[in-house]
Amino acid sequence: MQDSHDIPRRMDELATRLFPICRSLTGDGVRKTLGILGELVPLDVHEVPTGTPAFDWTVPREWNIRDAYVETETGKRILSFKDNNLHVMGYSCPIDEVVSYDTLMEHLHTLEEMPDAIPYVTSYYAERWGFCLEYSKVQALDPAATYRVYIDSSLTEGSLTYADLVIPGNSAEEVLFSTYVCHPSMGNNELSGPIVNTFLAQWIAALPEREKTYRFVFIPETIGSLVYLSRHLDHLKAHTVAGFNVSCVGDRRDYSFIPSPAGTTYADRVISHVLKGLKLDHTKYSFLDRGSDERQYCSPKVNLPLVTFCRSRFGTYPEYHTSLDNLDVISGEEMANSLNVLKHCVRTVEGNAVVDNVFCGEPQLGKRGLYPSTSKLGSYEAVRAMNDLIAYADGNRDLLTIGEIIGVPAWELAPVARQLVDAGVLCRASD
Amino acid sequence: MQDSHDIPRRMDELATRLFPICRSLTGDGVRKTLGILGELVPLDVHEVPTGTPAFDWTVPREWNIRDAYVETETGKRILSFKDNNLHVMGYSCPIDEVVSYDTLMEHLHTLEEMPDAIPYVTSYYAERWGFCLEYSKVQALDPAATYRVYIDSSLTEGSLTYADLVIPGNSAEEVLFSTYVCHPSMGNNELSGPIVNTFLAQWIAALPEREKTYRFVFIPETIGSLVYLSRHLDHLKAHTVAGFNVSCVGDRRDYSFIPSPAGTTYADRVISHVLKGLKLDHTKYSFLDRGSDERQYCSPKVNLPLVTFCRSRFGTYPEYHTSLDNLDVISGEEMANSLNVLKHCVRTVEGNAVVDNVFCGEPQLGKRGLYPSTSKLGSYEAVRAMNDLIAYADGNRDLLTIGEIIGVPAWELAPVARQLVDAGVLCRASD
Amino acid sequence: MQDSHDIPRRMDELATRLFPICRSLTGDGVRKTLGILGELVPLDVHEVPTGTPAFDWTVPREWNIRDAYVETETGKRILSFKDNNLHVMGYSCPIDEVVSYDTLMEHLHTLEEMPDAIPYVTSYYAERWGFCLEYSKVQALDPAATYRVYIDSSLTEGSLTYADLVIPGNSAEEVLFSTYVCHPSMGNNELSGPIVNTFLAQWIAALPEREKTYRFVFIPETIGSLVYLSRHLDHLKAHTVAGFNVSCVGDRRDYSFIPSPAGTTYADRVISHVLKGLKLDHTKYSFLDRGSDERQYCSPKVNLPLVTFCRSRFGTYPEYHTSLDNLDVISGEEMANSLNVLKHCVRTVEGNAVVDNVFCGEPQLGKRGLYPSTSKLGSYEAVRAMNDLIAYADGNRDLLTIGEIIGVPAWELAPVARQLVDAGVLCRASD
Repeated sequence: MQDSHDIPRRMDELATRLFPICRSLTGDGVRKTLGILGELVPLDVHEVPTGTPAFDWTVPREWNIRDAYVETETGKRILSFKDNNLHVMGYSCPIDEVVSYDTLMEHLHTLEEMPDAIPYVTSYYAERWGFCLEYSKVQALDPAATYRVYIDSSLTEGSLTYADLVIPGNSAEEVLFSTYVCHPSMGNNELSGPIVNTFLAQWIAALPEREKTYRFVFIPETIGSLVYLSRHLDHLKAHTVAGFNVSCVGDRRDYSFIPSPAGTTYADRVISHVLKGLKLDHTKYSFLDRGSDERQYCSPKVNLPLVTFCRSRFGTYPEYHTSLDNLDVISGEEMANSLNVLKHCVRTVEGNAVVDNVFCGEPQLGKRGLYPSTSKLGSYEAVRAMNDLIAYADGNRDLLTIGEIIGVPAWELAPVARQLVDAGVLCRASD
Repeated sequence: MQDSHDIPRRMDELATRLFPICRSLTGDGVRKTLGILGELVPLDVHEVPTGTPAFDWTVPREWNIRDAYVETETGKRILSFKDNNLHVMGYSCPIDEVVSYDTLMEHLHTLEEMPDAIPYVTSYYAERWGFCLEYSKVQALDPAATYRVYIDSSLTEGSLTYADLVIPGNSAEEVLFSTYVCHPSMGNNELSGPIVNTFLAQWIAALPEREKTYRFVFIPETIGSLVYLSRHLDHLKAHTVAGFNVSCVGDRRDYSFIPSPAGTTYADRVISHVLKGLKLDHTKYSFLDRGSDERQYCSPKVNLPLVTFCRSRFGTYPEYHTSLDNLDVISGEEMANSLNVLKHCVRTVEGNAVVDNVFCGEPQLGKRGLYPSTSKLGSYEAVRAMNDLIAYADGNRDLLTIGEIIGVPAWELAPVARQLVDAGVLCRASD
Repeated sequence: MQDSHDIPRRMDELATRLFPICRSLTGDGVRKTLGILGELVPLDVHEVPTGTPAFDWTVPREWNIRDAYVETETGKRILSFKDNNLHVMGYSCPIDEVVSYDTLMEHLHTLEEMPDAIPYVTSYYAERWGFCLEYSKVQALDPAATYRVYIDSSLTEGSLTYADLVIPGNSAEEVLFSTYVCHPSMGNNELSGPIVNTFLAQWIAALPEREKTYRFVFIPETIGSLVYLSRHLDHLKAHTVAGFNVSCVGDRRDYSFIPSPAGTTYADRVISHVLKGLKLDHTKYSFLDRGSDERQYCSPKVNLPLVTFCRSRFGTYPEYHTSLDNLDVISGEEMANSLNVLKHCVRTVEGNAVVDNVFCGEPQLGKRGLYPSTSKLGSYEAVRAMNDLIAYADGNRDLLTIGEIIGVPAWELAPVARQLVDAGVLCRASD
C-alpha cells in the first residue's frame, strides 16, 4: 500500500498544495484544508454553529475574506492580501476608508527586530481591523500622505468547522492524536502537524490488526479543542489511555515534548521511551512551556493523559508566527522523521502488555530450544534480554516499565514477550 | 500605627533595656523581662509552682540572686556579679566561704580558646556553685593564696514564669511562634528572639483581619516548653498548622532554619518558600542540628509541624554562650530583617488557599477584561502568572505548591487568586 | 570455643582440603564436600532422586567420573583428568574412541584470550562429551594425527545432594544464608562461599542467645535452589526476613552486592548499612547483574528479600570460570574479612528493634544518671547519639533506619537502645 520511500515527496507535495490557503478559526479556508486532507483519510467533517457554548467559551462568528490591500492616494499598493494572507490581521472586520498616516500606523503591526518578516496577528474576540507589514517597508511610508485601507471580509452567523476520524481496534481504549488547522500560510506552525497526523492515520488504518482504537482530531486551536471536549468529554475521559497533540514537527531541529502537568501519564512514559529508545536528541519541556491545545486537554477538570510532541516548540524558533515560517522551514524528509517517532509510539502502545512469569523460579529455556545448552563465557549474554524480561515479569510491570529497567525498547521487547507467551513461559497478566 | 521605619531604633532601645537583666529558668529576671515585653503587647503571664510535673520533668525550685563575688584575702575583687551576671554559674546555690586556690579552681569555668570571654554555664538540675571567668585572668591568680567565694542566691519553693498571647483570627487554625527568655546578659542567643517575636505580635495584632489565630509563647527553654506542652498538648496538636521557634535572629550573618524531623510539614514548606522567594542566602539544617525548643515541640509524641528559624544557629557562631554575645553582635536593623522574614511567613499562611478552576478547559479571560484581546508576540507572557495559576488550580494544590511550581511567591499569588475568585474563574476548594 | 585469630589459618586448611574434589550438580564430589563441611557444623544432608520435578525443572541424572584423558596414537597424554578436573566438560557422557583431529577440535574448549588457562565448561541438560584445554597447548596438536578420547564417567538414575542447617532462635523469623557446592577445582567462585558460610554458622550456633532463627543452605546452583524452593517455598515466604546468597567472597578485591529487584528489602538495607558502617569500599550492582541463585530466590513468584554478597562478583574478575581461579586467588585472611561483614549483618538483625519514646517531650536523662548535669560547650555532644536515638524513636522507625539518619551503625545503637529501654525511657514498639 503505502510506499514509505515515497512519503517525504508526497508530504512535500501536500504542503505545497495546502500552503496558500487562508485558514483561520473558522471559514472556508478550514473547510478547504480538511477537504484536501480528507482525500487521504476518511475524515468526518463537523460544523458547529456560531453561538454554540463550549464550557466558558462561545463559538465565534464565521470569518471569511476575499481581498484586502492598502494603497496610496495614487493607487500604489503598499501591501496586498493576494501577495500574502498574513498581511491582514486574522478576523479583521471589513473596511473601505481613506485614513491618515497616523490612523494607518495604529492599525499596522510590524516586527522591528525582524524587519523583513510579516508578523502573524489575530484579533478573534474583539472586533478590529488591522494589517501586518515588514518593518523595512514601513519606513518608506509618507507621513503626510493618506491611505486607502480596504478589507473585503465578512463576520457572519456561520459555523466552526473541524474533523475527526476514529479507527477502531480490538479494545475500546483509545489513543488520541490532535492537531490544529487554523493558521494561514505558515509551514512548521501549521502544515507540519496536520500532514504528519494524516499520514500517521493512513498508516494506522492500513495495519493488519490494531489492539487500540485511534482517534484523530483536526481542529482550530483553543476554541476547537474546547468545542471538541465539550462534545466528547465523558467519552474521552473514559477511554483515552494516551494522547498526543502534534505541532511544529516539520523543521530540521531537535525533537521535544511538553509533558502533562504531572509528567507521569502513560503518554509521558511512551513519548519519553520512544525518543530515548530511538536515541534522538530531545528536550523535555515543562507544562509551564505549554501553549497549544495541551492547555485544554490537560486543564484540571479535563486532565487527559496527553503530551504535545514537537520539533522546535512554538515560540522557540526565530521564524515562529511570521511569514518566514514558510515552506523553506519544513521538509517532507523531516516530517517523515517525526512521523517515524509517532509510529514508534503506536508500536509501543500496540505491543505493550503486563506479563507474568508462569513458574516459580526461572523457566528452563533450554528444553524449549530458547537457550543454548552449553554454558560458556558469552553464551549467557546472548539471551540476556530474554532472561531479563522473564526476571522482571511479575504481573505488575508492563513491557514499557521492564524496557526502561533493562534498557531495551518496548517495541523490541514485544515480539520477545509474544514468543515467551507462545512457549508457555510467560502469560499476559490480564489473561 | 506602627511606623516600620522606626522599628530598628525601637528594637535597639528594647535590647539595651533588657540586656542587663539576670534571667534564668525561673526568678525575678524572667518576670521583669516579661513585664517589659508586656508593655508592647498584652501578654498573659503565668506562674507554675515548683514541683509541678511536666511529662518526665518537674518544675525546679525558683532561683534568685542578689550579689556574688570572689575576692582575695586582701579584699581585691577577682570577679563581681555586678560587673557581669555571667560571672556566676546559673542556679548556683548560696555560699560564703574562704577556700583554697585548688578548691576555687574546681568551681571556676573558663574558655582557654577564647581567653577574653566569660563562658555561660548553668547547673539547673544538680545543686552546685560555680563562677565563670576570662581565661586570661585566671593566670594572674596566686596558687598560694586563699579566696573568699560569696554568692547571695536563693533556691526556694517558688514558681516558673512564662507568658503567652493568643491573637484570634477567622479560623481556629493556629500559627505558633515560640521563643525563650531564660538567658542572662546575651544578645543573639537571648534578646533577639523575644524582641523579634514581640514586634511580630504587635504587627499581627494590628492587621485589619486575620485568617488564622496566632499564638505567641515566651518561655524558659526546655522546661518551659515542656510545661507549656503539658498544659496545652491536645489543643496545640488539634489546632497548630505551622509553628516557628525563633532564636538567634539578631546577627548580621546568613539566615537558616532547622527543619522538622520529617522536613515536610507546612512550617517547613512555608519557611523554605519565604527564604527562597525573598532570595535570601540561607542554610537548611537537619533536625540532627536541633538544640532549642524544637527538641520538645518535634519530639515523637508531640510532633507539632514546627521549624526553628535563626540567623546564625546556636552553637555555630564564635560568640555563642559567652560574654562576647553582647549588644555588638546584634542590631535593630538585622532584627527588623528577620522580622520581615516572619511577616512573609504570616502573609504566606494568611493568603494561602486551595483553589480550583471553575471550568473545564481554560476560562476565557479576555471577555472578563483579564486578558489582552490581540495576540502578539509577548502579550501571552504578560499574563503568564495568571494563566499558570489557573492551569495548576486543580482543587488539590494550594498556592504555596503552585507558587513553587510556577516560580512565583505565594504572597504575590494570593491577590491574583482573589481577583480570579472574584471574577468567577476560580473557586476556593473548601467553599 | 572458636578462636577468631585462628580462623584465617583454619579457612586456608579447609580450602586446601576441599580444592581437589571434582564437584558437579550431582555426584560423589558434592557428597564428599558436604561431608567435610559437616565436620564443622551439623549439616542435614538430603538426597533428591533423579526425575523429581522442581517447578519447571527436573532433577537430572547423577554424574560421576573416575578418569579421563586424550592421548595421541603413540600414547602421549595431551591432557588428563587426574591433573586437573577442569579438563573434562562437566556432565560429559562416557566415551572411548579414536577420533580425527577435526572431530577432537569440535569437542575441545579453549580460551584464546587467556592461553594458559583451562576454561570451565559444562553441559548439564544436553548429553555431550568434551574436553577443556589451555589454548597454548592446542597449537602443538598435529592436524594429521588421530587421538584417543577417553572418559570414564557415568550418567545414572541417582540423586541430587544438598544440605541445610537450621539454628533456632527466640523468634520464628528466619535469616537465610545460601551458597553453592557444584563447581570443581576453583577457589573464589566455589570454595569461598561454602567456607565462609560454614564458619558463620559455627559462630551463630555458639552465640549465647539468638533473636532470629538462621537457615543455612548448601546446594548445587540453579537446580539446587529450585529444588530447595520447591520443597520449602511456603515456609520460606512466611518466615524469611532477610536472605544472603554468598558467592566469590575470598579474593582481595573490593566488596560488592547484587540487590534484590526492588532494591528495598530488609536484606538490601542490612548489607548496605553494614558495608557503609564498616567504611568498606564496595559496589552496589543492579539485579540486572545477577547470575547466581538470586535468580531463583528473587524470581517474581518467589520474591524472597535476598541479596547476593560478593567480593569480586562472578563474571567480573579475570580468573573467573577458569583454572586460574585457584587457591592463589583466595586467602583465609580475606575469607575472614568477608565473614566479618556477615557477622555484622547478623549483629544488625539481632539488635534491631522498633523503639518508641515513652514520654511526651525529651526524657530527663540527668536524673537517671544518663546525662551530664552541668551544661558546658561540648557536653551536649557527648551524648548526641543517645539524644538522637530518642529524638527519632517514634514507634515506627527501627534502629537501622535511625542509624542511617543519625549516622551511627545499628549494631552500635542496639546496646544504647537496650540501656534506654532498661532505664524506662524507651520501650520496644512491639512490647
